[in-house]
Amino acid sequence: MKPQRFAVTPGEPAGIGPDLCLLLASQPQPHPLIAITSRDLLLERAAQLGVAVDLLDVAPGNWPDVPAPADSLYVWDTPLHAKVVAGQLDTANAAFVLQTLTRAGQGCLDGDFAGMITAPVHKGVINESGIAFSGHTEFLAELTHTTQVVMMLATRGLRVALVTTHLPLREVADAITAERLERVTRILHADLRQKFGIAQPRILVCGLNPHAGEGGHLGHEEIDIIEPTLERLRQEGMDLRGPLPADTLFTPKYLEHCDAVLAMYHDQGLPVLKYKGFGAAVNVTLGLPIIRTSVDHGTALDLAGSGKIDTGSLHVALETAYQMAETRI
Amino acid sequence: MKPQRFAVTPGEPAGIGPDLCLLLASQPQPHPLIAITSRDLLLERAAQLGVAVDLLDVAPGNWPDVPAPADSLYVWDTPLHAKVVAGQLDTANAAFVLQTLTRAGQGCLDGDFAGMITAPVHKGVINESGIAFSGHTEFLAELTHTTQVVMMLATRGLRVALVTTHLPLREVADAITAERLERVTRILHADLRQKFGIAQPRILVCGLNPHAGEGGHLGHEEIDIIEPTLERLRQEGMDLRGPLPADTLFTPKYLEHCDAVLAMYHDQGLPVLKYKGFGAAVNVTLGLPIIRTSVDHGTALDLAGSGKIDTGSLHVALETAYQMAETRI
Repeated sequence: MKPQRFAVTPGEPAGIGPDLCLLLASQPQPHPLIAITSRDLLLERAAQLGVAVDLLDVAPGNWPDVPAPADSLYVWDTPLHAKVVAGQLDTANAAFVLQTLTRAGQGCLDGDFAGMITAPVHKGVINESGIAFSGHTEFLAELTHTTQVVMMLATRGLRVALVTTHLPLREVADAITAERLERVTRILHADLRQKFGIAQPRILVCGLNPHAGEGGHLGHEEIDIIEPTLERLRQEGMDLRGPLPADTLFTPKYLEHCDAVLAMYHDQGLPVLKYKGFGAAVNVTLGLPIIRTSVDHGTALDLAGSGKIDTGSLHVALETAYQMAETRI
Repeated sequence: MKPQRFAVTPGEPAGIGPDLCLLLASQPQPHPLIAITSRDLLLERAAQLGVAVDLLDVAPGNWPDVPAPADSLYVWDTPLHAKVVAGQLDTANAAFVLQTLTRAGQGCLDGDFAGMITAPVHKGVINESGIAFSGHTEFLAELTHTTQVVMMLATRGLRVALVTTHLPLREVADAITAERLERVTRILHADLRQKFGIAQPRILVCGLNPHAGEGGHLGHEEIDIIEPTLERLRQEGMDLRGPLPADTLFTPKYLEHCDAVLAMYHDQGLPVLKYKGFGAAVNVTLGLPIIRTSVDHGTALDLAGSGKIDTGSLHVALETAYQMAETRI
């Protein structure tokens, strides 16, 4: 396995992202990881945590080809706009957060990085700063000129992709169109093949309504939209089962024989995934021309600088990105 | 513990309900169980399964006070309207199915039974017979003149109650009214106290929208309806936490300190419950003046008469009914 460079973005500087990067440095990595953030921020947070980390400056034209030595971390210094106090949001640093994402995403497009791993941002403070921002996923889609991306969460033994993501529940049913379902299914199928190396992915698809509509008694979207769309895609050779009731699909009988579940909306698919994978789940953005994985938790402002954080999800996010980069065809 | 009589309804006669009753007979029970169904049906299914069961006729005025001996089953004979073929639905027997439920429910009201345990019915065939039927729960609510019931599923370590149940997803948001949420929360709270013996129930409440609306960015029902309703009920002394995001609520940090989760809709709460409790979950109807528990699976028409069925859920349904009858205040 040839070492490849990966970018890590610590996200919200007042959250636990900087802590996660510093804790990473204590463990050997198989690839060079570049933290894209403020060098000063890392130094201050390291002092607060009582962690000794050697920060090694890197930048375009000066990339490392080997992993950093023990207790050291490569940093592409990206200046803050205001001094950070752990746990305290500041709209002045919203543009800084987005700059780290732009550097990482553009670096992936340019081939400087094999992939990027993101720690959590705080959507609220970015929007309050006057910058419209609905999430990493949408930001990277725009940066890479991608019209449709798919959010997938994964943990050991289960992958769940979503047809709709951060929509108020009352808007979900109208958002389940044949066009969207087809686009999302195509992306999921293609990325399971191309980025996860699964030759013939087996996908279980949830219905939209309870009991998958129970033959039309509990809603018609299954009959009108989901079934015909899946049938059309099956004709192309895709291995799609469903629409199945969400409350029976997540049981061993079904899950043992599938590579991914496609849920229609956020709270239909993610509670099980996070219950099963608590502390060890990863968020993967499918459909992008780059590899991007993320931790599955939030900024945890109250834990920033405390040292009481769990790096489980970050490790899964790293491992997943490494595997995808190796597998990619 | 004084033995109390319980009614068992096998539900759809072409499904696995009769098989479940017959398998029950092979295991000793602490209480007399009365199967309310056709004696002939049980005899035929027993022959098909190769099971030797002694059927003991009972009826009003002739109730047993001790559990049935090994390999025998009390039966309150309730005639079929048409001969049953395992696996084949027949609208001619829809009225029979409802008669078994009426006998069981009325027997509970009359004090003949301490509770009733139901095997699955097939809603479709009952409706096709020309009888409007939306489920056990609604049927028993009408029989007992109860205006609001609450569906709760339970397994070891987790109880999930629902604010809305069998509604098309597009109707869910409008159904979450302050009135309904208050009624459901009161019933859940009261029944956890009265039927489960929990002096001060701790209830976690899900938001309606992803991330519980994220401060209004992803929907307003949390701010407009859920938060004020919970706050009002907290003023009365109820221990209610939420609204919480459904995808983080089902994690040990929260679940360790709760007696029940209140989910806003079917596929928000039940996938986790059934994932966790697969094969050993029970459906409890709260708010009724009687005790009613049910298996959490369907009619499994394809398995009727095969002998390849799992009685795990039925055993949990029985145990839960026994416990509730003992605990009831």
